[in-house]
Amino acid sequence: MKLYDCKTAPSPRRVRIFAAEKGIELDKVEVNLSAGEQFGDAYRAINPDCVVPALELDDGTILSEVVAICHYLEETYPEPTLFGRSPRERATALEWNAKVEQQGLVHIRDAFRNHAKGLQGHALTGPTGFEQIPELVERGCVGANAFFERLDTQLAQSDYVAGAEYSIADITALVFVDFAAWVKLSVPEDLKNLKRWHSTISTRPSARA
Amino acid sequence: MKLYDCKTAPSPRRVRIFAAEKGIELDKVEVNLSAGEQFGDAYRAINPDCVVPALELDDGTILSEVVAICHYLEETYPEPTLFGRSPRERATALEWNAKVEQQGLVHIRDAFRNHAKGLQGHALTGPTGFEQIPELVERGCVGANAFFERLDTQLAQSDYVAGAEYSIADITALVFVDFAAWVKLSVPEDLKNLKRWHSTISTRPSARA
Repeated sequence: MKLYDCKTAPSPRRVRIFAAEKGIELDKVEVNLSAGEQFGDAYRAINPDCVVPALELDDGTILSEVVAICHYLEETYPEPTLFGRSPRERATALEWNAKVEQQGLVHIRDAFRNHAKGLQGHALTGPTGFEQIPELVERGCVGANAFFERLDTQLAQSDYVAGAEYSIADITALVFVDFAAWVKLSVPEDLKNLKRWHSTISTRPSARA
Repeated sequence: MKLYDCKTAPSPRRVRIFAAEKGIELDKVEVNLSAGEQFGDAYRAINPDCVVPALELDDGTILSEVVAICHYLEETYPEPTLFGRSPRERATALEWNAKVEQQGLVHIRDAFRNHAKGLQGHALTGPTGFEQIPELVERGCVGANAFFERLDTQLAQSDYVAGAEYSIADITALVFVDFAAWVKLSVPEDLKNLKRWHSTISTRPSARA
């Protein structure tokens, strides 16, 4: 297996943390996103969506959605489990992973990509060019702040995002909170549960992956 | 189990088709989205995200992300399989399900919700109000058309979206193509593979669920 990676980008960090938690050593190939390597013919032939991460399996299959990559790693390296131990726990981990992606990460992505000078014409990832829409910067910040509160409420009820055990949902949420700093958003002081969780989770060795 | 549903909305249709393929009879509760029932106190106590579908399990757990609901149903009613039969096939089904959601459905949602008069102040689902951004109507149409082409290329290589077998990815893609009609988009005539697939898939009895 080979991971097409970029050390500074949020999405591949999710896979690196996931692999680190399981002690999987992945053969990594760095893709230079700031030089536009993801749009070059060589990388496009590997992943026509022009994004990282992408995991190349030994049979040549390419996976480039984080949830798919992590599900594959979970099934091939089952311990420690990061998707829960029962149908209900697995569904809950997927549920919170999806909520964090769609109600959290997407908003930071919008706030960042619709503002950064270097991303003009690339407000969305991928090969289709999309111009920046300035209103999405403000909308992204409002949405992310609302999701900080949603996470805080959830973490008032359980130690981890998807319940009593650390899971893929915590990894996605950690990357969301850390990515928020790119647009100068941080967890408000009064969200004690989210603050507590973020401090704890950030001390795991995998957080540096 | 109880499904909070809305007969006319695209997201719950994904769950209804999935259940129909497996022959699962779900106890359904209709939520009147056009009357705003999803924002009322009663429904908010069930699902604070104020969206349908939501599946209530017998222990009271609420799942409201389609991928999580379907993963739960797959594990509790394994046949016929709709997520593939190996780690690679399951990852590929999740991969394409996610691609259709994020590169397809999201664009139609944007094109529809940023235009419809009745959705002013609700350009995104959920309890946080978001004003419409007219530029997202055009962007949504451009993105959806690009994804029609992506799907056509994929369906030149395999009978179904995630490979040789019908899967959750076909259900999501069917709902994407049919939802596109809401914003007057249809599959261009020259995308023969996508046309062929859509005709075939639409004749399955589950498509009427």
